[in-house]
Amino acid sequence: MGGRPHPDVARARVLVRDALADLADGSRVLVAVSGGADSLALAAATAFVAPRRDLEAGAVVVDHGLQEGSDAVAWTAAARAKQLGLAPVEVARVEVGAAGGPEGAARAARYDALSGVAQRHDAVAVLLGHTLDDQAETVLMGLARGSGARSLAAMAPADGLWRRPFLALSRTQTRAVCEETGVEWWDDPHNDDTAYTRVRVRTQALPALEAALGPGVREALARTASLLRADADHLDELVERVEFEALDGDDRLDAETLAKLPRAIRTRVIRRHALRMGCPAADLTAAHVIEVERLVTDWHGQSHIELPGKVVARRVGVWIAFSR
Amino acid sequence: MGGRPHPDVARARVLVRDALADLADGSRVLVAVSGGADSLALAAATAFVAPRRDLEAGAVVVDHGLQEGSDAVAWTAAARAKQLGLAPVEVARVEVGAAGGPEGAARAARYDALSGVAQRHDAVAVLLGHTLDDQAETVLMGLARGSGARSLAAMAPADGLWRRPFLALSRTQTRAVCEETGVEWWDDPHNDDTAYTRVRVRTQALPALEAALGPGVREALARTASLLRADADHLDELVERVEFEALDGDDRLDAETLAKLPRAIRTRVIRRHALRMGCPAADLTAAHVIEVERLVTDWHGQSHIELPGKVVARRVGVWIAFSR
Repeated sequence: MGGRPHPDVARARVLVRDALADLADGSRVLVAVSGGADSLALAAATAFVAPRRDLEAGAVVVDHGLQEGSDAVAWTAAARAKQLGLAPVEVARVEVGAAGGPEGAARAARYDALSGVAQRHDAVAVLLGHTLDDQAETVLMGLARGSGARSLAAMAPADGLWRRPFLALSRTQTRAVCEETGVEWWDDPHNDDTAYTRVRVRTQALPALEAALGPGVREALARTASLLRADADHLDELVERVEFEALDGDDRLDAETLAKLPRAIRTRVIRRHALRMGCPAADLTAAHVIEVERLVTDWHGQSHIELPGKVVARRVGVWIAFSR
Repeated sequence: MGGRPHPDVARARVLVRDALADLADGSRVLVAVSGGADSLALAAATAFVAPRRDLEAGAVVVDHGLQEGSDAVAWTAAARAKQLGLAPVEVARVEVGAAGGPEGAARAARYDALSGVAQRHDAVAVLLGHTLDDQAETVLMGLARGSGARSLAAMAPADGLWRRPFLALSRTQTRAVCEETGVEWWDDPHNDDTAYTRVRVRTQALPALEAALGPGVREALARTASLLRADADHLDELVERVEFEALDGDDRLDAETLAKLPRAIRTRVIRRHALRMGCPAADLTAAHVIEVERLVTDWHGQSHIELPGKVVARRVGVWIAFSR
């Protein structure tokens, strides 16, 4: 070792240090390791930072069991995390269901497993290796939903148990970190499978956007996410303070109160109320919310509006009533 | 004529009618006509709606003088607008400067000319033919700046003199309107010149995004713009109410007050103040604002920050001071 670390290695360590700055001495964190370059770079940086911050750092490898030989990949990843000095290192085998599509189901199973292992080991944080590139891809996938600030806010740097120190680091940089620290990684063939939306966004949409708009698109998307997260957080807070004013005892919304609200608040009140009335969050789009909003702002006797989860919204006098 | 109009023709008319709903009887509006399908469809729809709403509707064609034969194109466009029944119809020849790049300079000259003609004719509104496709392109171009909600809010449906009734109509639909109403249009060769960012976004980036994310991306981008415009408007209103609290008599910002503000408000207070201190709006990016914000939220003795327009921000005790 000795000498100055490579700039990407130094940057990775600073990002991990900053992401863990608020944790009490002696706390335990776990790194979620897949065996790819991003999570192994995170494991390497965390293994460096943790002892200097008096933290214990272990690792969890989730084996989704979706590919032939996934157990071997998982155990190899676990061995590498151990070599880096992380302990304990655990492999969690999960059953991936079907709900929410292949990507959604795998993600749900993974987060479940990670939080289960964290609980067993009394870990206060699970570190995830999402990069700037992942964030940019997530913003574009959120754009496709057209659901406003919250869906463009993409992934949070810190959210409960989850911490994502590398949202400011590119995939090129995590590879450099692995190369510089002598860590071999595994390239998941799924990452090239264009059956996945994310892969198409990465390999086709983002390069086309960069060709059209110039370099720096990924950074701009990540910055957009961070700014819109702040907006969405603040607006959600404001909504919490006013929404009760628009509600009557029968779970109806008062159209006259809604009409007086700024649109940014009105659409959020409607969305929150629709969720409470049973609309599944994943299916409730901005288009639905806007249609309900028209019962307030453009009322001309329209019929009832069918929302996901068999919820129906209709205007009854001065009220917007929801039923199932 | 007779019979039911084609659905796209009917839709175009409804959009124009709704966009003019608040105007007093007898008012005059002008349609900005380029000779392309979008603005001629708008001219056709406006010529239909205006007499039924007791409005006077004329047209202005701006001749940018940038292409060989642009005057002939302009006079042909004017003739078509007249044939549709618009009056008066005027051709305004402009001198395009150099400031803001070729696209920016042409736009500035165009809007200047349009508002000048509107003033001379006592017009209360100028109708612009921007479509859903234009809006989607503008959102993507705003993404590249990474400057948050306001830059993604793209074009307003109504903003002072300007009205854009067709932000909900696609380019395919405006062509259908022209075909159905027997209006010939002119295809500007600039619309295929990939030297323009907008053309690259239209011909390369948007198709790639659609291939990756599925159809409906343009609609989703337009919906995103509309929602983020509402957010940005409301947050700007809130900022106006609180920003004076963060200011001292010497145009300095109080770091302790800023630190207590929600981030969505804090970054906007900083941006507005930087603009007031002389930073040119076009050059002040979110990255600049975030750097100034770090003087508040991550103060560790950093040096002064150079902003566009030779403005410098630095932390002085509990203050953030700006100077030129």
